[in-house]
Amino acid sequence: MNKKRRLSSQEYIDGILDGDRLVLSRAITLIESTNTLDIVQAREVLAGVISHSGNSLRIGITGVPGVGKSTFIETFGTYITGEGRQLAVLTIDPTSQLTHGSILGDKTRMEELSRNPNAFIRPSASGDALGGVSNKTREVILLCEAAGFDVIFVETVGVGQSETLVKGMVDFFLLLMLAGAGDELQGIKKGIMEMADAVVINKADGENLKAAKRAKAEYQSALHLFPEANSGWIPQVKTCSAQEGTGLEEIWDMIQQYANRVQGNDFFEKNRQKQQLNWMREHVNALLINNFYEAEQVKEILPKIIEQVESGELPALNAAVQLIDSLNQK
Amino acid sequence: MNKKRRLSSQEYIDGILDGDRLVLSRAITLIESTNTLDIVQAREVLAGVISHSGNSLRIGITGVPGVGKSTFIETFGTYITGEGRQLAVLTIDPTSQLTHGSILGDKTRMEELSRNPNAFIRPSASGDALGGVSNKTREVILLCEAAGFDVIFVETVGVGQSETLVKGMVDFFLLLMLAGAGDELQGIKKGIMEMADAVVINKADGENLKAAKRAKAEYQSALHLFPEANSGWIPQVKTCSAQEGTGLEEIWDMIQQYANRVQGNDFFEKNRQKQQLNWMREHVNALLINNFYEAEQVKEILPKIIEQVESGELPALNAAVQLIDSLNQK
Repeated sequence: MNKKRRLSSQEYIDGILDGDRLVLSRAITLIESTNTLDIVQAREVLAGVISHSGNSLRIGITGVPGVGKSTFIETFGTYITGEGRQLAVLTIDPTSQLTHGSILGDKTRMEELSRNPNAFIRPSASGDALGGVSNKTREVILLCEAAGFDVIFVETVGVGQSETLVKGMVDFFLLLMLAGAGDELQGIKKGIMEMADAVVINKADGENLKAAKRAKAEYQSALHLFPEANSGWIPQVKTCSAQEGTGLEEIWDMIQQYANRVQGNDFFEKNRQKQQLNWMREHVNALLINNFYEAEQVKEILPKIIEQVESGELPALNAAVQLIDSLNQK
Repeated sequence: MNKKRRLSSQEYIDGILDGDRLVLSRAITLIESTNTLDIVQAREVLAGVISHSGNSLRIGITGVPGVGKSTFIETFGTYITGEGRQLAVLTIDPTSQLTHGSILGDKTRMEELSRNPNAFIRPSASGDALGGVSNKTREVILLCEAAGFDVIFVETVGVGQSETLVKGMVDFFLLLMLAGAGDELQGIKKGIMEMADAVVINKADGENLKAAKRAKAEYQSALHLFPEANSGWIPQVKTCSAQEGTGLEEIWDMIQQYANRVQGNDFFEKNRQKQQLNWMREHVNALLINNFYEAEQVKEILPKIIEQVESGELPALNAAVQLIDSLNQK
């Protein structure tokens, strides 16, 4: 495949449906592009593959830096591919608001998995806009599913904002923790704990084993304090050692148990429907805002309005109303 | 003042400018209301007082639960009022996405401060929408300033999302930490560390004193790794014991040093201008979205579109485009 040549939408579609990794990679780049031509083509490609999407188990994985996320994904992912699954790993990293830093070198972080023919690792562009990040990753999930991946990991670092996004696009949400990280840490994770379908305590090995078991009991009773999830599923706590490869089978069994259960009681479908509606609303918002600032009337008066707001002449709220009115009075 | 009677906009304006706490409280409730009549009146009230706002030092205070935020605000706030300042404390709590829990009993948390005639404590409604939370708190800041408060604390729990919001509405951002809380905790706070103008290590007392001093040195060198802020200010690290009331004077001196410096080099003004523009954009977005879903054409087709998305007939992205088009083809 000539890297320079622009693929036609049909070539993208055929390549994705054939499971061609190179074409999939390029399609993801296309989806993430902000170039107008690319956006139009991305929409065509997505429309062409969407009926082949949806057939995966989408698993969100989160945890603070230091918890061993990379190693966990590496060994757990290897285990899952060993079970005959095709695994795609997508990472979202909104850590650094100021420097726009990104998780460095995913392929270095997960060396073994990156060479695994049944795995596909791809960092997701970390845009500025909340909706932006979310939209793109959702589309990438669909592409991966159309390319035949039947398990998708969506990985994110533990910083509040991204968890909510990821929770909104996965079927199962797994929180990776450490034993003995203190109450402060548990405190900060409260909002995230509530989202978890499972808490996995990593590094349950060597001298840590005892503390991990104790933490397991503590988390298990803490999780009982939360209101019952709509899924009817009671969040479970597991221990594992990603380093030593222990506990992985139990975690995978649990996830499959969950899948069976929620597919049985319709929650799986209902949850995806709700996610679809939220996605629709987010996309409406993104389009509205984009179209607004592209409008001639707005472009015309915006510089002056900005000037007036900066000089303090015009309060921000009034400025917003004036901008909106400029479009209505066409 | 008869609590039942609806105040006129002029009564609100006069009351606020007189520094009447009861009227200020009611005005904040008005600002936070989602009732259409209230929204219109809130806009009038805000317009009536806005020229009297802006004359405060706005200080964001954050830190994970357990760090001693309430006690810090209680003793530091008491110190500041003792310096002849009028202090308003606003709290934002987006902790719990699912149960909409809110910081419980601010007046219980800060008993002494709540009885202080020079202090005013008010929890800020924790809305669902990002823009929502942000907008309301910003407006509440303006009201408090118009009522004569010259120092405003905006307090938030340490959960990523809210820090970014608060950073966008304050002049100075203070991060409260503990000594020896481990690398994991520092990891999760990286994005937030970058926003901080000061890191204050609390509970620097008794047996903790030594660890606090060591942590101070560590944080100080960690902060040097970040790119220099546009303010030209190098973030400082201080220790204090909110419990014992030590270190407060130094912190207040530092904040005043900061204020002098950024007022001298124009950063203060420029930063507020930028915040105003962001606020304008957020408000534009909120209005666009609100107006959109209020439009007859949208209301008409929305139920059917939702049905089609739920049934899987219509992909979310296409549904969004159809909704947008319905309005354009009027």
